[in-house]
Amino acid sequence: MKKNFILAPGPTPVPQNVLLAMAQPIIHHRTPQFKEIFKQMNENLKYVFQTKNDIFTFAASGTGAMEAVVVNLLSAKDKAICIQSGKFGERWTELCKAYCVDTVIIDVEWGKAVEIARVKEVLEKHKDAKVIFSTYCETSTGVVTDIKAIADLVKDTDTVLVTDAVSALGGMDLQTDNWNIDVVVAGSQKGLMIPPGLAFCAVSSKAQKLVEVSKTSRYYFDFCLAKKALDKSDTAFTPAIGLCIGLNEALKMIKQETLEKVFQRHSCLAKAARAGVEAIGLKLFAETPADVVTAVCVPEGIDGAELVKIMRDDYGVTVAGGQAELKGKIFRLAQLGYMNEFDILTGLNCLEIVLTKLGYKFSLGKSVAAAEAVFLTYTQT
Amino acid sequence: MKKNFILAPGPTPVPQNVLLAMAQPIIHHRTPQFKEIFKQMNENLKYVFQTKNDIFTFAASGTGAMEAVVVNLLSAKDKAICIQSGKFGERWTELCKAYCVDTVIIDVEWGKAVEIARVKEVLEKHKDAKVIFSTYCETSTGVVTDIKAIADLVKDTDTVLVTDAVSALGGMDLQTDNWNIDVVVAGSQKGLMIPPGLAFCAVSSKAQKLVEVSKTSRYYFDFCLAKKALDKSDTAFTPAIGLCIGLNEALKMIKQETLEKVFQRHSCLAKAARAGVEAIGLKLFAETPADVVTAVCVPEGIDGAELVKIMRDDYGVTVAGGQAELKGKIFRLAQLGYMNEFDILTGLNCLEIVLTKLGYKFSLGKSVAAAEAVFLTYTQT
Repeated sequence: MKKNFILAPGPTPVPQNVLLAMAQPIIHHRTPQFKEIFKQMNENLKYVFQTKNDIFTFAASGTGAMEAVVVNLLSAKDKAICIQSGKFGERWTELCKAYCVDTVIIDVEWGKAVEIARVKEVLEKHKDAKVIFSTYCETSTGVVTDIKAIADLVKDTDTVLVTDAVSALGGMDLQTDNWNIDVVVAGSQKGLMIPPGLAFCAVSSKAQKLVEVSKTSRYYFDFCLAKKALDKSDTAFTPAIGLCIGLNEALKMIKQETLEKVFQRHSCLAKAARAGVEAIGLKLFAETPADVVTAVCVPEGIDGAELVKIMRDDYGVTVAGGQAELKGKIFRLAQLGYMNEFDILTGLNCLEIVLTKLGYKFSLGKSVAAAEAVFLTYTQT
Repeated sequence: MKKNFILAPGPTPVPQNVLLAMAQPIIHHRTPQFKEIFKQMNENLKYVFQTKNDIFTFAASGTGAMEAVVVNLLSAKDKAICIQSGKFGERWTELCKAYCVDTVIIDVEWGKAVEIARVKEVLEKHKDAKVIFSTYCETSTGVVTDIKAIADLVKDTDTVLVTDAVSALGGMDLQTDNWNIDVVVAGSQKGLMIPPGLAFCAVSSKAQKLVEVSKTSRYYFDFCLAKKALDKSDTAFTPAIGLCIGLNEALKMIKQETLEKVFQRHSCLAKAARAGVEAIGLKLFAETPADVVTAVCVPEGIDGAELVKIMRDDYGVTVAGGQAELKGKIFRLAQLGYMNEFDILTGLNCLEIVLTKLGYKFSLGKSVAAAEAVFLTYTQT
């Protein structure tokens, strides 16, 4: 009897009530019934994004929403700054290059967050940059970037701040309006607790001005078509109905728990995960670790790919390995979405068993004990 | 106790076993478990598309796949022929215009199919057209176009034939390879019996040559990235995992029924629907009606919008109204996907009740009787 636990930074576990909501007979999207669901979904999305701005929902994965931002805000030969500290930061650059946008790259060593002083310098040097692209939680390295500090630099300039919050939204505090983030991009299969297939762009009026002048060809991802439809609680093209229905349920759960407690829970789970791995001598990969995913260096002498494979295939516990240059060098344990103490503890339990099997030396139970101690310092409600 | 029946041409009813497959705990997409499902899904898709060509699956709605074709096959200022006989034919033109493609429009009166002689003429006049865009079943008018005849004209030219089969695939015979259709576009929420959110492009080697020279910027919908991933049974970006799992189940059902019987069933259901509405004096809107959706003219003195609204809100039977210039003038009853005799009969039952309420005169039961008579001529297995 193998039970499957998904502890990867997306897709994340989907609550059973959400799965069952999506398993109801399908309804048509041009009906009062769906319109009501879509309206509610959009209102609750605004709560989670902490914004009054329009949020456009696309049937797409996160990369689709990233592309949407590039094609709606920029034209060929426009200048954009890309902060690049991992695989997803690089995706901004790749997208800009695909659309012939002139990129100024701030290259950051993987595992580190960009220094704010460096961002300031580049912003001052490139006042003509129309957009600066950033990543809140870089899923590939587990690094959190101080987006608020970057937003503080950008807000009084003519540059528009775009933040990839795909893995952060619904896990870490992201005050779109208060912090002045112009565009926030997110996906459905992370903190929003539903399967992949929906992607979102929250767009400020400052960003909207770029939309008006962008000359890039677009259709499916066109913000103007999306806006026209959204104003009537509709979508320009057939929405992913089932996923919208699931999202509506998941958002109700977040609202009921309250964002404050959601963030507290993720912070507590992450603290426990970090304490757990450090207690058995493992090193964190991220200098400034995010609260939604913990990237851990594979100890010397252990094959990282093997570790992830055994955890998954022999024990049913799916964590993520390293991507690109980090393949085999790190593994990533998520604390994201529909998770509580026992998900993290299961991850650590399994890690203890498999690391021991692979010959890594430590006292069994030590990792779990450290995590439990963290949980004990948090008051349960 | 209101029961909901969905008889619109997409989304179509989703079988319960498919809904339940999608309601299982989510799995990660970079696992042997998902790879196996994805492989099976792709093999069975080829069966349904009747092709050996690559089929690219995107997390998107049908329009996303249409856009994918335009950006991968054409560059700005290339010439393309658009056959336009309804809302979805017009979408090809809109997409071409959005991407600055030089369009030659074959405008066809709504309700009619394009004349093959006219296509021949335009093809001969515009030998430099890189692509000709067509629509197999025009969902907005219920018209089927003789795609095989068009393909016969195109196959020996340098022009590439693209067919929107969004509402036709899995309902009407479409022999991609035998008929020499270069690109077939489809969506998930029609004959494939799952919710919207997946879109497909089957691409021939003749079309692939255009992909190699297209200069249009693209990323999310890039066929090259999709092809590279597909060769490893993977996707370039996070797939809509749940929908892929559902599709895999739905495709197994189609394979078990066999395509031959699927087409026979749709043909029988459509014949019955047409007989049913004609028996009570209603006129078909389409000159050459498709076997997946029956467009019916609203009789004089009856408000078409009201008819659709009462059927849906008072009786739980969702049929589609007319779109754009056909608003209020037609209604559309689908015979598409997971449907059998009793779905069609329910649609006709409801139609009889509501038409009578609205003051349209005919003998109750006459429409249903005509449909039942058709069913009796088909042998049940």
